[in-house]
Amino acid sequence: MNVLSPSRRVVVIGGVAGGASCAARLRRLDEFADITIVERGPDVSFANCGLPYHIGGEIRDRDALSIQTPASLQAMLNLRVLALTEATHIDRNARTVTVKSVKTGEERLLPYDQLVLAPGAAPLRPPLPGIEHPQILSLRSLEDMDRIKLALHHISSVLVIGAGFIGLEMAEQLAHLKKKVHLVELQPQILPLLDAEMVRPMENELRRHHVDLRLGQAVASFSAEPDNHVTAVLSNGERLTVGAVILSIGVRPESALAKQAGLALTPRGHVVVSEYMQTSDPLIYAVGDVCATPDPLSGGVSNVPLGGPANRQGRTCADHMVRGPSALPYPGSIGTAIVRVFHLAAGITGLSEKRLRELARPYRSTTVTGSSHASYYPGSQKITLKVLWDPETGRVLGAQSYGGDGVDKRLDVLATALRGKLTIDDLVHLEMSYAPPFGSAKDIVNIAGFAATNQRDGLLHNVDTVPDGALLLDVRATATATQEPMAGATNIPLPLLRKQLASLDPNQVVVTVCNFGKTGYFAARVLAQHRYTALTLTGGVHGHPELLKHKDDDAS
Amino acid sequence: MNVLSPSRRVVVIGGVAGGASCAARLRRLDEFADITIVERGPDVSFANCGLPYHIGGEIRDRDALSIQTPASLQAMLNLRVLALTEATHIDRNARTVTVKSVKTGEERLLPYDQLVLAPGAAPLRPPLPGIEHPQILSLRSLEDMDRIKLALHHISSVLVIGAGFIGLEMAEQLAHLKKKVHLVELQPQILPLLDAEMVRPMENELRRHHVDLRLGQAVASFSAEPDNHVTAVLSNGERLTVGAVILSIGVRPESALAKQAGLALTPRGHVVVSEYMQTSDPLIYAVGDVCATPDPLSGGVSNVPLGGPANRQGRTCADHMVRGPSALPYPGSIGTAIVRVFHLAAGITGLSEKRLRELARPYRSTTVTGSSHASYYPGSQKITLKVLWDPETGRVLGAQSYGGDGVDKRLDVLATALRGKLTIDDLVHLEMSYAPPFGSAKDIVNIAGFAATNQRDGLLHNVDTVPDGALLLDVRATATATQEPMAGATNIPLPLLRKQLASLDPNQVVVTVCNFGKTGYFAARVLAQHRYTALTLTGGVHGHPELLKHKDDDAS
Repeated sequence: MNVLSPSRRVVVIGGVAGGASCAARLRRLDEFADITIVERGPDVSFANCGLPYHIGGEIRDRDALSIQTPASLQAMLNLRVLALTEATHIDRNARTVTVKSVKTGEERLLPYDQLVLAPGAAPLRPPLPGIEHPQILSLRSLEDMDRIKLALHHISSVLVIGAGFIGLEMAEQLAHLKKKVHLVELQPQILPLLDAEMVRPMENELRRHHVDLRLGQAVASFSAEPDNHVTAVLSNGERLTVGAVILSIGVRPESALAKQAGLALTPRGHVVVSEYMQTSDPLIYAVGDVCATPDPLSGGVSNVPLGGPANRQGRTCADHMVRGPSALPYPGSIGTAIVRVFHLAAGITGLSEKRLRELARPYRSTTVTGSSHASYYPGSQKITLKVLWDPETGRVLGAQSYGGDGVDKRLDVLATALRGKLTIDDLVHLEMSYAPPFGSAKDIVNIAGFAATNQRDGLLHNVDTVPDGALLLDVRATATATQEPMAGATNIPLPLLRKQLASLDPNQVVVTVCNFGKTGYFAARVLAQHRYTALTLTGGVHGHPELLKHKDDDAS
Repeated sequence: MNVLSPSRRVVVIGGVAGGASCAARLRRLDEFADITIVERGPDVSFANCGLPYHIGGEIRDRDALSIQTPASLQAMLNLRVLALTEATHIDRNARTVTVKSVKTGEERLLPYDQLVLAPGAAPLRPPLPGIEHPQILSLRSLEDMDRIKLALHHISSVLVIGAGFIGLEMAEQLAHLKKKVHLVELQPQILPLLDAEMVRPMENELRRHHVDLRLGQAVASFSAEPDNHVTAVLSNGERLTVGAVILSIGVRPESALAKQAGLALTPRGHVVVSEYMQTSDPLIYAVGDVCATPDPLSGGVSNVPLGGPANRQGRTCADHMVRGPSALPYPGSIGTAIVRVFHLAAGITGLSEKRLRELARPYRSTTVTGSSHASYYPGSQKITLKVLWDPETGRVLGAQSYGGDGVDKRLDVLATALRGKLTIDDLVHLEMSYAPPFGSAKDIVNIAGFAATNQRDGLLHNVDTVPDGALLLDVRATATATQEPMAGATNIPLPLLRKQLASLDPNQVVVTVCNFGKTGYFAARVLAQHRYTALTLTGGVHGHPELLKHKDDDAS
């Protein structure tokens, strides 16, 4: 036994994703380290992503959310867990952390050789009038979850503020519980990380399930009502009276302790770390939602407040403690995220169009719609994929997708493509697994590659709006064009186009439009080779439901 | 209009995946080309991967399988289609193809400027005694499908010969039709492209659904029986009498015409092509099942007889005809394939362990088992992933997976990783989309990266068998160890291991075993750091059901 060398003393502040992963990995690398986890709450290593689903009843067993307990971490990994204990001060010279019992207020000093900050991020709670009402809640811990479950008893309506990932999961689960759900979002779209047109179908999906979605609205104040109800006053003056409010407008890193210790922070308050998760003090590491890591796509730094990056940062941190620079560095987060809302999923990996514009970075955009698997096999669903790419190199910069099935798979393929620095040419020839229940011989990812390379090579000229004076040429079958007419369009089905070319004015720009964009492209190729100026409307009618005379409320 | 330059004359022999894709792409690039498709059968561009599912009734509408007809190709793409027409001779000097009407025998000459061979591959039909029996069928075309459907009327038993992808799909669909299915395979395993241990659960899945699976058996002869039945005599002398036989033992490239024309062929009879799909005659291209393309993984050439590669080769061919060397070359096929059998899927991308051994190429192998999505969210299923990688560079060489759900996604991620030349270090940090219904914060792909890097870094020492004289240490919970005891094992649950270390002989090699391999690894880390020689059994009991005293027939 390795009793001669003194054990390293490691204190880990925070015992959920990043902190627990770090401590567990460290134990596997160093059986003799003296490892203490300091956790302010009563629980460690719980499945925070599962909380909305227990509230909604999909995950029935609360215990399923407790991946480990302080006792199991002690038994399995020989970790000392100080739960209900808050770290209040770091003395970098003395290498000690002051910790305080949440229950008794008793303080003690923990000496460390290496310190890991994994305190996470706290839900934002804006200082609005009335915010202290007991039915205005947010969701971070198992205790928060229990409070929300309790608050939902005997009430029939809930206001969710913020339509990001957690807000949407909550809205969906509250609707499952048959609550009347109001969802207010400051931005003019849900899921502000995604581009607006990629979330419209999900906005419709929410409305179809009777969620009262209010975009571009803030809450100005709250006031108490009888029966423990709350009235929220919106920025447009409207008043919503509900039984409870869930705040999900974002999180702020819990970096007060790091700040007190004089560690370098970003302007947004995240702890700055190296590729090995070291802060500006090399004996102190930070992992998870509290820190910002180099962003391999934008060149800056970013924080992706999700469990996956946190876990892998914890691992990197432990590896570096034991192995130094021979450890595998953290490569930065590209940001992959997904959410399901009723029968639709939507997600993103890498940079959005919005973000590319902010970065003033040149890009081109390709959007295609296809089938989740072979359309002739039962159960296939429509899936839309948007790929953003560098006009010079063709390198993929980001992707977004929505659809009923298979969105996760395409995002994961594109996330892997991003990591591999693949180009739109590579997407053409990706060999994805194909049998009719699983995919298509030409997967939507390949089709995105076809369309993007066609754009680059000047074969496909996409537009998102119809230019003034252009002819809108509807190339769908006549039966479809009659049933779902487009305002101001001329219908010539593709099979008749070559014969009816003479009826078109060669001096008028033509914008072809079909159901999803493919037949429109085919028609534009015919026209262009006959010397017409032909553009194709991205995504066809599916992408532009506003063109239909009798607009359906479902663009999915 | 481009009437001054003479139109190029292109003849495409074969109108299904590769040929149809080539002709369609060519039309989009060259509106004025004179394009003729010569197809021996009555159908073009049909969904050949869907045929088993129409036989089994999952795809009810036969018309759903006809993606295009000769008339629709004419109308949409201005292609001339000569169906029921066979190409019989190529005159390379005169640049003509002789074609013959299948119905009338009438011959004519088609001149070409460029010729595309896309005749596909024909099911093997070995010259066994009795093979000409009318109930011995194979599946390639819509007509074959109709014949099989007809042959299945009023019979109760079918023999499927060959347990490759099509054989398995047929066996599954015939079982859906309540036929008694016998499945005979020459190799000692189903799906011979995969490694044996990765198909065992699927073999069990077949048996559980009452498929009479006979591995390591050939059929020696057939004989006719009353009522149009057939008896097959197996190599072990057994006799199976059935109502019909489906031959699915493989295919041979239809390269007779290419051979007649003096084009270069591989020893296995595939047409040799360049990265632009040109044969040894630069005016003649070949695409799809008939040709062999450079293999980016093995360095040789390979043929992957699937629709995806064929379609994309057809596209490459058309691009090269019009654009010459500025076209995007075909990067070679890495070979990704999947099959579903009842509730289980299995598939492969890249090189198998078997193939790496044939190539005498150094490799290491990592197998992990996890959940298709967060195990605390309802409906998660077990998934097993095997990754093969280069011991020098860590580069991924191939992957295989089986499981109830999400196999396609992981294969597609690994196929993308192969295209991007990613390493096991990259797998550690792949950012896959995560919400509880879709994945895990640590996806099985990340876990494969963890395990592989642990193997490389000397933290994890996996074995597939227990060495003589070693202690088999069962570190599962005592309740599990009591309920499912392992022969010859000592049970010390991981939480008790540190306390009971003294009970172990420090001079005896210890092999740790748990349910799936993870806890065994944790235990081995404890032991190794206490100076024991500790190995871990790959995949735990799940991967080694033979260790259980009361062996379950289901290792999935």
